[in-house]
Amino acid sequence: MIACVIHGAKDLRFEKRPNPQPGEGEVLVRFGAGGVCGSDLHYYHDGSAGDFTIREPLTLGHEVAGEIVEVGKNVTKLSLGQRVAVNPTRPCFKCDYCLAGKSHLCVNVLFYGSAARFPHVQGAFSELFVAAEQQCFPIPDSLSYRAAACAEPLAVTLHTVTRAGEVLGRRVLVTGSGPIGVLAVAAARLAGAGEIVVTDVFDQPLRIAKQMGATHVVNVASSPSEIEVFTKNGGWFDVAIEASGNVRAVGNCIDATKRGGRFVQVGYLPPGNSSITVNRIITKELDMAGSFRFREEFGWAVDALARGKVDVEPMLSEAFSFPEVTTAFELASNRQKAMKVSLVA
Amino acid sequence: MIACVIHGAKDLRFEKRPNPQPGEGEVLVRFGAGGVCGSDLHYYHDGSAGDFTIREPLTLGHEVAGEIVEVGKNVTKLSLGQRVAVNPTRPCFKCDYCLAGKSHLCVNVLFYGSAARFPHVQGAFSELFVAAEQQCFPIPDSLSYRAAACAEPLAVTLHTVTRAGEVLGRRVLVTGSGPIGVLAVAAARLAGAGEIVVTDVFDQPLRIAKQMGATHVVNVASSPSEIEVFTKNGGWFDVAIEASGNVRAVGNCIDATKRGGRFVQVGYLPPGNSSITVNRIITKELDMAGSFRFREEFGWAVDALARGKVDVEPMLSEAFSFPEVTTAFELASNRQKAMKVSLVA
Amino acid sequence: MIACVIHGAKDLRFEKRPNPQPGEGEVLVRFGAGGVCGSDLHYYHDGSAGDFTIREPLTLGHEVAGEIVEVGKNVTKLSLGQRVAVNPTRPCFKCDYCLAGKSHLCVNVLFYGSAARFPHVQGAFSELFVAAEQQCFPIPDSLSYRAAACAEPLAVTLHTVTRAGEVLGRRVLVTGSGPIGVLAVAAARLAGAGEIVVTDVFDQPLRIAKQMGATHVVNVASSPSEIEVFTKNGGWFDVAIEASGNVRAVGNCIDATKRGGRFVQVGYLPPGNSSITVNRIITKELDMAGSFRFREEFGWAVDALARGKVDVEPMLSEAFSFPEVTTAFELASNRQKAMKVSLVA
Amino acid sequence: MIACVIHGAKDLRFEKRPNPQPGEGEVLVRFGAGGVCGSDLHYYHDGSAGDFTIREPLTLGHEVAGEIVEVGKNVTKLSLGQRVAVNPTRPCFKCDYCLAGKSHLCVNVLFYGSAARFPHVQGAFSELFVAAEQQCFPIPDSLSYRAAACAEPLAVTLHTVTRAGEVLGRRVLVTGSGPIGVLAVAAARLAGAGEIVVTDVFDQPLRIAKQMGATHVVNVASSPSEIEVFTKNGGWFDVAIEASGNVRAVGNCIDATKRGGRFVQVGYLPPGNSSITVNRIITKELDMAGSFRFREEFGWAVDALARGKVDVEPMLSEAFSFPEVTTAFELASNRQKAMKVSLVA
Repeated sequence: MIACVIHGAKDLRFEKRPNPQPGEGEVLVRFGAGGVCGSDLHYYHDGSAGDFTIREPLTLGHEVAGEIVEVGKNVTKLSLGQRVAVNPTRPCFKCDYCLAGKSHLCVNVLFYGSAARFPHVQGAFSELFVAAEQQCFPIPDSLSYRAAACAEPLAVTLHTVTRAGEVLGRRVLVTGSGPIGVLAVAAARLAGAGEIVVTDVFDQPLRIAKQMGATHVVNVASSPSEIEVFTKNGGWFDVAIEASGNVRAVGNCIDATKRGGRFVQVGYLPPGNSSITVNRIITKELDMAGSFRFREEFGWAVDALARGKVDVEPMLSEAFSFPEVTTAFELASNRQKAMKVSLVA
Repeated sequence: MIACVIHGAKDLRFEKRPNPQPGEGEVLVRFGAGGVCGSDLHYYHDGSAGDFTIREPLTLGHEVAGEIVEVGKNVTKLSLGQRVAVNPTRPCFKCDYCLAGKSHLCVNVLFYGSAARFPHVQGAFSELFVAAEQQCFPIPDSLSYRAAACAEPLAVTLHTVTRAGEVLGRRVLVTGSGPIGVLAVAAARLAGAGEIVVTDVFDQPLRIAKQMGATHVVNVASSPSEIEVFTKNGGWFDVAIEASGNVRAVGNCIDATKRGGRFVQVGYLPPGNSSITVNRIITKELDMAGSFRFREEFGWAVDALARGKVDVEPMLSEAFSFPEVTTAFELASNRQKAMKVSLVA
Repeated sequence: MIACVIHGAKDLRFEKRPNPQPGEGEVLVRFGAGGVCGSDLHYYHDGSAGDFTIREPLTLGHEVAGEIVEVGKNVTKLSLGQRVAVNPTRPCFKCDYCLAGKSHLCVNVLFYGSAARFPHVQGAFSELFVAAEQQCFPIPDSLSYRAAACAEPLAVTLHTVTRAGEVLGRRVLVTGSGPIGVLAVAAARLAGAGEIVVTDVFDQPLRIAKQMGATHVVNVASSPSEIEVFTKNGGWFDVAIEASGNVRAVGNCIDATKRGGRFVQVGYLPPGNSSITVNRIITKELDMAGSFRFREEFGWAVDALARGKVDVEPMLSEAFSFPEVTTAFELASNRQKAMKVSLVA
Repeated sequence: MIACVIHGAKDLRFEKRPNPQPGEGEVLVRFGAGGVCGSDLHYYHDGSAGDFTIREPLTLGHEVAGEIVEVGKNVTKLSLGQRVAVNPTRPCFKCDYCLAGKSHLCVNVLFYGSAARFPHVQGAFSELFVAAEQQCFPIPDSLSYRAAACAEPLAVTLHTVTRAGEVLGRRVLVTGSGPIGVLAVAAARLAGAGEIVVTDVFDQPLRIAKQMGATHVVNVASSPSEIEVFTKNGGWFDVAIEASGNVRAVGNCIDATKRGGRFVQVGYLPPGNSSITVNRIITKELDMAGSFRFREEFGWAVDALARGKVDVEPMLSEAFSFPEVTTAFELASNRQKAMKVSLVA
């Protein structure tokens, strides 16, 4: 079979791999579609993502959907031909975190296409890949593989919204209008947020944010003063979601959130120190919450996509076949031209 | 009457002021004792505390207790001769924050001895000072004025503990063994924390931390490796309380708190940017909560002191009279020699 | 002017009253439309609602919208001709509950058309009525008065959803498909609930529940066994909302909610004792939460109606003019024929 | 070996049983002391406890401590001669509740001395009994077996306090001064409650409640009017803990808790319906929370007993040897003469 394998920075290859076999409780999935994620791009550009550096060839990809083509022993709820969205996480269900109901913080988790462990856990940008039964969520025929593959980043942002506490009726700021930012908009909207304001430095992604449910957008590059109206009298927003990974946006979140408010950091930030106004977190008595991956939110995401409650069409950019993977990654790196680039079978 | 008035950095004077008069709903209090706080010291050393700079002579002092010597109109629950601990905050009870039950974040609050507003709100290091009725909490004869004056910083740390979420039975780290740190220990202990570990760079304050309820103390200057045992496998503590105001201690809190844990920042940090490992707040999915002042916790603090549930004797250093105020402030600035220095009538 | 005044059980009169005058900070509103509520019906049928009995003639009505026709002194944000939905509650903003951010539990609240206090607070089923400025929420021309008058019961159910804790992605049971039940469906849907199952003993209201967002409905009279599938293995639902006021439905909520789950009681229950399986609340470790009125949710309700996020058209039954008020009340009492009956100008 | 076996109502026998063998990951414990619990008494008096009826001879007992006398394979943290308090619960760690961090609600849990499952899980009132390694908590020599056996009911009440939400500084009502009631006092005190008022119908248990930390006690039989002062103006207590199992006390909790407050039901209530004022739970917007068993609180309980933070001496009544078990159970049934009766080796 064919797989998209990263060998080092800028060295992404389209190459043959042996067909994998499903074990007990597992199925074999034929790739339908997959989204290119920010961490895929970090591996591609830098040979590492955050603290994790590639030490052996690594098949990328963890936002995927496909069709079940082989069923292992003791699989009880899935059958051949079933179309599924695939949750890329496989927690151990035995560590203290798993047993505390926090399997998304599992210390032994296996995650598709990640160099966090060695040997690396291979990813799912390959014609065939193995998944445990509980990783597979059936999808209706009405949902395309491309849209279904968005269940993973949508699950990330639904988790972010649960980390944000109460959003129903509340005013929400989202800084950063990339794929996570616009899906944070969709998640906040699904959760009943009242006002949803999005900031970015480019107009094109902000246009998509509006289509995904933003009530107002601000280009902080061309209209920097617009954010200032939100920082008066202690701040305007009940909740802020930082999804840009830009440390200046962290400052905007701190300033624009009401005293006693909550802001959630879901955007990737570089390892090591970041300079932020911690003093104001104290004097405004904010809660700053990290948001990492997801848990049962994957099922919610599939359900919301299947029922049409969240429509990801506005964020889908071009789709490419495996041989065009490098072109796909280059386009995905251009925030002004692309939002969510897909690979398709 | 006599008052301790700061005119600028290092310019703290012992001077005469006209006697104040209580208005409607107010009483006149004769100073019994007062504690020197970190913000008093910032005004003394720098002429400013955080973002607030002295623009006119300012009587310092906000940790005080005394005796009621005059009662204004429409005061219904207090009488002459009553010994009281005095809450230095006077919220407006009309702004959005007050009406949301968050009067400690009131945008119009009057706070003794603070340059946050102009004209400044004068403090209580003076022979006589005025307080609203609801600022005064009766104390029993068994409680000294010096101890009663600790109700204010104890209220700060009780509020910190409420911000820390669940501490009953939990493992708590307190970084920084100054007055706020050791009172955070007392507060965590009062709230039923299981293990309470305190770090500092000096042995003397750590000794007091033990007397106040720490189960273990670590001198991170002389035994830096000791903190490392707490950072394995994702972290040891359920809750961390940062009370040192040292940005390196923030890093210790992030590293030593379990994934999904909570740490509260109560220590003063300088205005402007501080460099912290925000990336780890995300990947460990921590909650970082600011803690600012207090609300009903002042009453709890008085109650705990009155019932003997919290004993502040171990933290009380020398006491001085008003004419010795500069000596008192200099001693209070020496962490190896003093913990809580008091002024007494 | 004309008002709909209850004098005792079954004695609802259409009669003349003097025109009211707006005071400082108040406006005069000309009635546009109003919904007949369950408590209006209790006054009509029994001469009392719960513990409150009519002791003097009482103009009914508290679900209302209209147009501002006169503006008192010191009104700053409203002007003549403004169409508004009117919040029927006027808390004191001074009692302990108000200052704790719980103004919906205010001990001195004034509520339109209620016999809770004496003299009674007159209601708003009258050609003209007075409202404080902060009670009035502007509505767009696109929103009819009939729909805008639903802001009040929608606020009730939005509050219920906040009392239900986390509903995003969760499975929600609503027992009782009356006006509060179907608006609880709308509120749960707005808050992102996954599955929403509604029970009732009649098919017609269940049909409306489906139109309002229920994913499944169960007629427990004609298909009693259908609820049983939800009570296996400790229960199916994360959250239950009891909106029928029927004590048997309370039992269904207890049985069909998962261990550790939460159910909220918003349905009216008669004063005095009700027999429920308290023992199972313990052994299943449920949270049973009362839900009473609303607070900021009124603004959220207006916003959701104005933006078209909640559509109340399916629940609107016939509309009547003031002279037909008795006919309106009789129809509103027939659950098989009517859902929300309105009075219109 | 000898065991205390119930064969039916009033048929409690002192009889021989074969020695049990520890399996992998298990140890054999020699009985040191055990407390007689309310559910033991229900089996003794009625042949059933709540919904669970004895269908085969059942060794009673689940509040126990003892010494490890044999160690199975793969036991890594315990050794021969270790004195331990033993947690009577053994969750499956595989069901949905366990994986959600709620192992105390495990659908497959094994609990010493319970007829909930068939074959019944045998109890620990026997000279020897088997425990999994994770059930055993080392205790210091300074802690007697009798006191250590109280870890189990103390864990129950610590869990109740976590279910009560915030108690630090708050006013707490405990209705019922039996073993669970007085340990609820100890737990509330450990968690920093301000005022703790206890009610009962007998003076003797109320005397013990005072020794355990109650700030005020009320005999509702001899001074019924005393509770009324707590029901004015919407209620006095922030939190109520119902530990009497008496339905009238439930009413007291509802009436004496502030609007918006929380009350926790930990007291046993008979299966089937109980008549309570549900209507007031709505209009006062209370949270009524069930409290069932415990989880990590067992470790907290052992820690609190070991450190001397909770002293159970005042509640310990007479101790009996196994041959006197019927006498022990009869005495334990007399609330005026005994609080916690123990069996000792």
